[in-house]
Amino acid sequence: MIIIGERINASRKSIFEAIEKKDAKFIQQEAVNQVNAGAHYLDVNCGTNIKDEPKNMQWLVPVIQEAVDVPLVIDSPSAEALDSGLKLCKHKPIVNSITAEKERIKSIAPLVAKYNADVIALTITEEGMPHTAQQRLDIAKKIIEAVKEYKIDPERIYFDALVRPISTEPDQSKEFLKAIELIKTQTKSKTACGLSNISFGLPNRALVNSTYLAMAIYTGLDGALIDPTNKQMISILRAAEAITGQDEYCMNYITAFREGKCG
Amino acid sequence: MIIIGERINASRKSIFEAIEKKDAKFIQQEAVNQVNAGAHYLDVNCGTNIKDEPKNMQWLVPVIQEAVDVPLVIDSPSAEALDSGLKLCKHKPIVNSITAEKERIKSIAPLVAKYNADVIALTITEEGMPHTAQQRLDIAKKIIEAVKEYKIDPERIYFDALVRPISTEPDQSKEFLKAIELIKTQTKSKTACGLSNISFGLPNRALVNSTYLAMAIYTGLDGALIDPTNKQMISILRAAEAITGQDEYCMNYITAFREGKCG
Repeated sequence: MIIIGERINASRKSIFEAIEKKDAKFIQQEAVNQVNAGAHYLDVNCGTNIKDEPKNMQWLVPVIQEAVDVPLVIDSPSAEALDSGLKLCKHKPIVNSITAEKERIKSIAPLVAKYNADVIALTITEEGMPHTAQQRLDIAKKIIEAVKEYKIDPERIYFDALVRPISTEPDQSKEFLKAIELIKTQTKSKTACGLSNISFGLPNRALVNSTYLAMAIYTGLDGALIDPTNKQMISILRAAEAITGQDEYCMNYITAFREGKCG
Repeated sequence: MIIIGERINASRKSIFEAIEKKDAKFIQQEAVNQVNAGAHYLDVNCGTNIKDEPKNMQWLVPVIQEAVDVPLVIDSPSAEALDSGLKLCKHKPIVNSITAEKERIKSIAPLVAKYNADVIALTITEEGMPHTAQQRLDIAKKIIEAVKEYKIDPERIYFDALVRPISTEPDQSKEFLKAIELIKTQTKSKTACGLSNISFGLPNRALVNSTYLAMAIYTGLDGALIDPTNKQMISILRAAEAITGQDEYCMNYITAFREGKCG
């Protein structure tokens, strides 16, 4: 299970301000906390201030890499911002994200190829969001075909099948989980996603997010964009790894428990 | 989702002592606490003292029914103990349990029929425990056939597909979850089980049990024998119900949260 730390995102006020003030220490502390909590990758998103995004990405990447030695997930819809981050990555990065939209593939797939990156692909098209698990799989297959011309193998793609809120679209939660199973069994690609949309409008969102994570790990989720410093989230993740045979002799679970990171 | 409170079980020292001393108040408090926490049924097990089991069952059932107005799950391998409890039940009870073992069916199925009860059936045979999901389904089908002569319809059976410890049998956790799915899609019966075996030998057992419960609810579990006063367990159960469309507008989840029972 790949844990992608989601906390360095300018949609969070404290991160937005740290980027504006170029407060490297604050960003680095967020990076260190997430890696200590178990993150294998750190997502880097500074898209709130669109005007300065490429410049800010160029500042963020080395600041983070000074503090921690994990690969990064460069997160932007802008090719320019992606490029300014990707060119500074020390480790093989993940690009977040492409979609099935032709313009987006045309602008971003060349960067995935250029930097030999992995890539997160949202199962969304020009026509909008899919409803069924099968539609999500169909879009995934289209994306796999579309990026072949950039020599991007299916194994390098993490599909995000788009979690939707149970408060407004209760039938979508099962379609998403089934989509993970379909993509895992019918393509060579992987799956990764954020989970927080599921709990939109509900109290105690981390509880709903982490419960949904347990189900998604059972249906085959490979990567999760989460806040690894949230103890409830990481506890359920470790338990789910142990249950699904991703943690031999439950050693990660037991270690996390002993270190007080889980429980 | 049917919640069966598991706490009135003489394998717990405090319950054993309360039964020996005929401490009705203690038993009734356990009953009230579980119903307040959300239990729809209460399991009643006094099998530790085998000699006095029928007599103790006969004492327990009215004591519990004086305190709470929910149906009971009469839990014993002994036909005599079952009979002494079943005959006193005010509401339609569940018998816990039969298996595919001929002798056990012969002694217990007549009681299920006599009291028009529902029944929990363990997918176990004279040859022992099944390994695969398919074997569990095959045993379930055998039990459905075997109890037909007692006019027990498949709809009255809750199959317990036998949770096994991940610490010793890591491949069994997925087989159990698949078995629930198979039984739910290929028979007219329901599924119910305890979960605590999954975490045998591990620290923070409630975390592993509740994470597994989330997965089991996704694959179709209808009933869970749990401690509903365990907040972690009931929290994840409420979240899982909301996620899987068993809680319209998430009202149970939100109410449980507001009442401090969840979160």
